[in-house]
Amino acid sequence: MKPRTLAVCYNAAAAQSCGPQAPTGLQAAQESTHIYTKEEVSSHTSPETGIWVTLGSEVFDVTEFVDLHPGGPSKLMLAAGGPLEPFWALYAVHNQSHVRELLAQYKIGELNPEDKVAPTVETSDPYADDPVRHPALKVNSQRPFNAEPPPELLTENYITPNPIFFTRNHLPVPNLDPDTYRLHVVGAPGGQSLSLSLDDLHNFPRYEITVTLQCAGNRRSEMTQVKEVKGLEWRTGAISTARWAGARLCDVLAQAGHQLCETEAHVCFEGLDSDPTGTAYGASIPLARAMDPEAEVLLAYEMNGQPLPRDHGFPVRVVVPGVVGARHVKWLGRVSVQPEESYSHWQRRDYKGFSPSVDWDTVDFDSAPSIQELPVQSAITEPRDGETVESGEVTIKGYAWSGGGRAVIRVDVSLDGGLTWQVAKLDGEEQRPRKAWAWCLWQLKAPVPPGQKELNIVCKAVDDGYNVQPDTVAPIWNLRGVLSNAWHRVHVYVSP
Amino acid sequence: MKPRTLAVCYNAAAAQSCGPQAPTGLQAAQESTHIYTKEEVSSHTSPETGIWVTLGSEVFDVTEFVDLHPGGPSKLMLAAGGPLEPFWALYAVHNQSHVRELLAQYKIGELNPEDKVAPTVETSDPYADDPVRHPALKVNSQRPFNAEPPPELLTENYITPNPIFFTRNHLPVPNLDPDTYRLHVVGAPGGQSLSLSLDDLHNFPRYEITVTLQCAGNRRSEMTQVKEVKGLEWRTGAISTARWAGARLCDVLAQAGHQLCETEAHVCFEGLDSDPTGTAYGASIPLARAMDPEAEVLLAYEMNGQPLPRDHGFPVRVVVPGVVGARHVKWLGRVSVQPEESYSHWQRRDYKGFSPSVDWDTVDFDSAPSIQELPVQSAITEPRDGETVESGEVTIKGYAWSGGGRAVIRVDVSLDGGLTWQVAKLDGEEQRPRKAWAWCLWQLKAPVPPGQKELNIVCKAVDDGYNVQPDTVAPIWNLRGVLSNAWHRVHVYVSP
Repeated sequence: MKPRTLAVCYNAAAAQSCGPQAPTGLQAAQESTHIYTKEEVSSHTSPETGIWVTLGSEVFDVTEFVDLHPGGPSKLMLAAGGPLEPFWALYAVHNQSHVRELLAQYKIGELNPEDKVAPTVETSDPYADDPVRHPALKVNSQRPFNAEPPPELLTENYITPNPIFFTRNHLPVPNLDPDTYRLHVVGAPGGQSLSLSLDDLHNFPRYEITVTLQCAGNRRSEMTQVKEVKGLEWRTGAISTARWAGARLCDVLAQAGHQLCETEAHVCFEGLDSDPTGTAYGASIPLARAMDPEAEVLLAYEMNGQPLPRDHGFPVRVVVPGVVGARHVKWLGRVSVQPEESYSHWQRRDYKGFSPSVDWDTVDFDSAPSIQELPVQSAITEPRDGETVESGEVTIKGYAWSGGGRAVIRVDVSLDGGLTWQVAKLDGEEQRPRKAWAWCLWQLKAPVPPGQKELNIVCKAVDDGYNVQPDTVAPIWNLRGVLSNAWHRVHVYVSP
Repeated sequence: MKPRTLAVCYNAAAAQSCGPQAPTGLQAAQESTHIYTKEEVSSHTSPETGIWVTLGSEVFDVTEFVDLHPGGPSKLMLAAGGPLEPFWALYAVHNQSHVRELLAQYKIGELNPEDKVAPTVETSDPYADDPVRHPALKVNSQRPFNAEPPPELLTENYITPNPIFFTRNHLPVPNLDPDTYRLHVVGAPGGQSLSLSLDDLHNFPRYEITVTLQCAGNRRSEMTQVKEVKGLEWRTGAISTARWAGARLCDVLAQAGHQLCETEAHVCFEGLDSDPTGTAYGASIPLARAMDPEAEVLLAYEMNGQPLPRDHGFPVRVVVPGVVGARHVKWLGRVSVQPEESYSHWQRRDYKGFSPSVDWDTVDFDSAPSIQELPVQSAITEPRDGETVESGEVTIKGYAWSGGGRAVIRVDVSLDGGLTWQVAKLDGEEQRPRKAWAWCLWQLKAPVPPGQKELNIVCKAVDDGYNVQPDTVAPIWNLRGVLSNAWHRVHVYVSP
């Protein structure tokens, strides 16, 4: 399927009636200068249509190379129908001359230089100003933008590259000017309120920690299979890990005169993102956690050595290690200390767990505590469900994490649906006692039992409080589809 | 079956050939002064033999009263064949004249005043000096003494009465003189070692907290049903709750010059109980927990307002809220701060969790962390497995608890083996945030579905980290049978 003589479409309009399914007969002047539109490239994403990618202005048909890709076919397929650059930017191993030489063999033409589709921005669209996202992200919702990295990229790196870090937005992304940005911190009685610029925040002692963030809805799609829930269809990717740098919340609160008090209190955060009525995203955490230096709550201005990307809260977000993503308020505008939890919808009417028996007619949101620390979690990222694996030996990979700084101490993996178990090898940064804020990646290479035609692969993790994952989803099902941490199961076929 | 004319045995030797199964024909001089030996009384413990109890020197046949007992038949049956006093001491409601009048109707005679069996103490027996225990305790091992309260008493009181608090001894109970008792606290470099008398400990600020203790082996008997394990056959009763008073460990350590350090360290405890080679019981906890005033680790000298009973560590034991019982070292003799965990067998070669695949040939004790915080737990105490319940409505009772100060936020109960769930009502002392050291008791009154002949009752608890119990036992099975916290299941019949 290498260099084929195909129709060349000179403009977007013509391209619509063009493509392998309906060649028009328009021929390029010379074989050596086939010109393709982006749209035409984007329709080549399967072995049947041919698998095309672009690099700069060059177009390549890599159909025959896909199975030879050293990183595995599935990773190259993520770029099918579009540019390689966003992926090569993540995986620097590609920036070598022999990779470019190899690719050159598959060149079939050039992109049409005039093929710049004018973006049709609906100016009244509150999401019109949202940033451009990485094409590898699996989008669960465009408006607001919610997307997760595909499993085969998720555990490729211990630190998730910023462009594919899972994104959970509740509202349009604000476009904030770092020069005029101010964080308002309401002072304690007798203390002083603060209006902090980015420079002011940089003047606090800088702390840098590796923290895994997980959405409460991670793996919700497995709950949906039991019974319908309200929520985005997250698969296993609503979890990512970054190195965050910023000021400690306890230092900033202390400067505003706050201190721990005997009675329970809460630190309320407000984002600068808001809905058309002007209601901002909000959430809160207990003051005791906020003021505890050991809890390491950050007002983060850096993510993996870069200013925060816009999707992740530029210029400042909260990072609450060991706690559900919903409390890590992005585009942070205001911090205050209150006797009660935040009155935000997302604190009081969402992000809570209920019994499987509770439905939308009977739910009493006040009866359950807001989710703070999350329970122990793990998932398989390789192989994929439905995949065919080689006989002989199978390599199983995944992640595991627990809330509250509890370290993952063991991951058990089963090839027979949970009848027998093997212990996986854990990888990742060494965690400090009681501050295991980051996940561990794990791997098991196991012989495939001879004659086996299928495998029911299961994983379950144990944390250092010896908490375990429940066996099945139905008994933890809840109407919002949060806290989905049953054993993760993947069914694969064994090639004969 | 009230007052029957039965054989009277005048001495223990004769009693052996005596009893309802083999009446000898020896008659008392008068109907009004039937005399019975203790041994004879002790053989009357079922409806078939008659159910006898004693109060002071009087003997009663309560066979017909058992079903009328306001506290339920099973509670009265605990005293069958022996004295009522130990039970009436627990449940003061009995000390009323109408109770005694009611009992008088069932009197059948008197205990033989000469019937004092000389205790045959084997003086070389290291357990010879162990204290006398309450007859309600279900004994799993006499030497060392290990026993649990029966389920129907366990959740009768939020605070477990001292005499039926579960007892987990590893060695003979030392008999310590409170006047000469000294606690040795090894001083920090530059600090001072302490030799503290009981009075010295009382001079530290006194703290009082309600804490639930649970043995790591609680509910081990359910693991044994999956596959043999090494350990005592605890049912659901290796858990109890008391109000403890004592000095804070952090205050005592501070007086010896200890402070938190950057590097991880451990506080090692040594008991004054020891085996024939002189090896004492020992265990350790991280220094960070010991020094944290919020963790409220006590050197306790009082249990429910009394000096500690001998079985529970008289005169001083450690109480580590939220942590496995094995670290609450009793008869405390020595405290030191070490760079490593205690080298005690019970810290390093026991009280750890492993994968179900690990057996005694493959176990590597160094590969697992010592158990500290325990996972979320719950169990049904009423009805009992195999019991027959009334149709109409069933009342289900139990307890729930989690380690690390995590509060139980919900208990789900199922009558159909886990297909559908109802939320139980939680009772108990209000818990402080992050310091839910004590259990909650729970109850559910539920209609029995009409026509149902059997119920498969199941309970599962959720803590405030939204940790849940696993569905089944086999996947958490481990060679020592610890951490048995799967859903608790009770099968009952419904009376037609």
